[in-house]
Amino acid sequence: MIRVGIMGYGNLGRGVECALSKTKDMELVGIFSRRDPASITPHDANTPVYTMEAAIEMKDRIDVMILCGGSAKDLPEQTKEFAKYFNVVDSFDTHAKIPEHFANVDNSAKANNKIAVISAGWDPGMFSLNRLYASAILTSGNSYTFWGKGVSQGHSDAVRRIEGVKNAKQYTIPVEKALEAVRSGANPKLTTREKHTREVFVVAQDGADQEEIKRQIVTMPNYFDEYDTTVHFIDEETFLKEHSGIPHGGFVIHSGTTGWEDEHKHVIEYRLQLDSNPEFTSSVLVAYARAAYRMNQEGMSGAKTVFDIAPSYLHPLSSEELRKQML
Amino acid sequence: MIRVGIMGYGNLGRGVECALSKTKDMELVGIFSRRDPASITPHDANTPVYTMEAAIEMKDRIDVMILCGGSAKDLPEQTKEFAKYFNVVDSFDTHAKIPEHFANVDNSAKANNKIAVISAGWDPGMFSLNRLYASAILTSGNSYTFWGKGVSQGHSDAVRRIEGVKNAKQYTIPVEKALEAVRSGANPKLTTREKHTREVFVVAQDGADQEEIKRQIVTMPNYFDEYDTTVHFIDEETFLKEHSGIPHGGFVIHSGTTGWEDEHKHVIEYRLQLDSNPEFTSSVLVAYARAAYRMNQEGMSGAKTVFDIAPSYLHPLSSEELRKQML
Repeated sequence: MIRVGIMGYGNLGRGVECALSKTKDMELVGIFSRRDPASITPHDANTPVYTMEAAIEMKDRIDVMILCGGSAKDLPEQTKEFAKYFNVVDSFDTHAKIPEHFANVDNSAKANNKIAVISAGWDPGMFSLNRLYASAILTSGNSYTFWGKGVSQGHSDAVRRIEGVKNAKQYTIPVEKALEAVRSGANPKLTTREKHTREVFVVAQDGADQEEIKRQIVTMPNYFDEYDTTVHFIDEETFLKEHSGIPHGGFVIHSGTTGWEDEHKHVIEYRLQLDSNPEFTSSVLVAYARAAYRMNQEGMSGAKTVFDIAPSYLHPLSSEELRKQML
Repeated sequence: MIRVGIMGYGNLGRGVECALSKTKDMELVGIFSRRDPASITPHDANTPVYTMEAAIEMKDRIDVMILCGGSAKDLPEQTKEFAKYFNVVDSFDTHAKIPEHFANVDNSAKANNKIAVISAGWDPGMFSLNRLYASAILTSGNSYTFWGKGVSQGHSDAVRRIEGVKNAKQYTIPVEKALEAVRSGANPKLTTREKHTREVFVVAQDGADQEEIKRQIVTMPNYFDEYDTTVHFIDEETFLKEHSGIPHGGFVIHSGTTGWEDEHKHVIEYRLQLDSNPEFTSSVLVAYARAAYRMNQEGMSGAKTVFDIAPSYLHPLSSEELRKQML
């Protein structure tokens, strides 16, 4: 059994707890949090909860620590720190800062003979893998990434900060016409506005000026001004009933050509439709935790991304079984 | 530059020749064939053509030999033999015999410190990868593979053997209703007939009995009797104009659940639409040839499949560039 710890018990940590319960080769040793352990109730009441500080003392009882904190503040500190004591996996998703994060974590993991998988999830993660595989095969071609239909937490938060807004949820939606143009192999140049639309559901406070709220949303710089945005005002009951989920997903579509005259078109399309964004990400983290453990058992160390990890390390089946059943 | 040889100059070998011409880090050293070299005209007249026997003497001038022969007779002999002298890549696609082929090739490659990538292509190959990744992440779920719309060479050949048939092409077509059922996450049990239909275009010889040809096709055991098959008789001109290509493709769709009550559904879909089946396979072989060379440079040896190869080995960009541009 691979002994796993969970650092951080938000949506992602809870998803990892659930995903671990469905494996046969991994067991949850404990949950670690910056909050008071007494304030945390794991799904299984028998799962021990510890302070973050207690983790280091348990370094010999945990094979992989799955880091479930946020990319803004938690992971830049935690991943490099805990990679000194554990194999670790994180879902660091600030694309622009990945090279810096990788370098910091790599130093720490290598110096301590640990594996540290960073940026596992679906984007970065499975979408990245599909961009890489497709462009390695069809070198004459272009990759397009579309997100949605799904909830953007950052955009929902931004709307909630507007005066008069009680609650809000923002959906990012790929434009069907753009998807079709890409699938046709036409290699279109697409502006931000042509790729995605945004749809916002708002619960306004009593007496709030809805026109003013709408104006502030659609003109908000960086978040909405470059998009066609639709705003709906709904009552709280409808909001809770129809917009409580955290669905997401999207498409990576790569079109390219082969042949001496580039006469043959090919389209590679990868699509995710996820009822729960955090639970899917958690499932990816658990599979990469298995990989981290196995790679470390083979003597490897250092920071790794999904690009550096052979697929077979992720799967509970042996290489022989995989060849027989899935190749 | 990675120095590459092509063994076998059919559709696949010609596709590899073209795909290599589009790389910047690989060069074609020569084409090898069982046929008389004088009978072979490469696309680039400067490319030397050698007999198969001449290959071994050139072992120090070639880093990777791409084996473009057939799975029935060529590869079971060639891959294990040439893995003694070269890093090799093949597209061995007889699924049931992969474990045996792997074992034979592994012995030979390990004994000679070479990398031998077997079964690279799209199925086995990219489809296999998608089955593995999806089932490693969504462990509570099922993978479905659909092929087409595309040309099945074996079925086309079988029709051509019927008396009175001058030429024929068979298309395998996924049933849209089955695709939709799988995408819905319903985890349907699908019979052979429910998953695919078959469509045959036949050029009959003058005076041939079309009803009898049709009867023989739709009742043909193993090939057609378990499918709903449509047969069209067309003239030779139409056949050459509309059915000369070798398109193919298909879908790997995995649906699974997360959550303590399996309350969240997720669908992962991978789709290929290929104008030229052999040219796409050739492009996969070239990417894995790059991987074979790099892994061998790092001291690795033995038989490998797409499951055993970290994605970054396939791509001409460095790991740093990949992290920056694609993660």
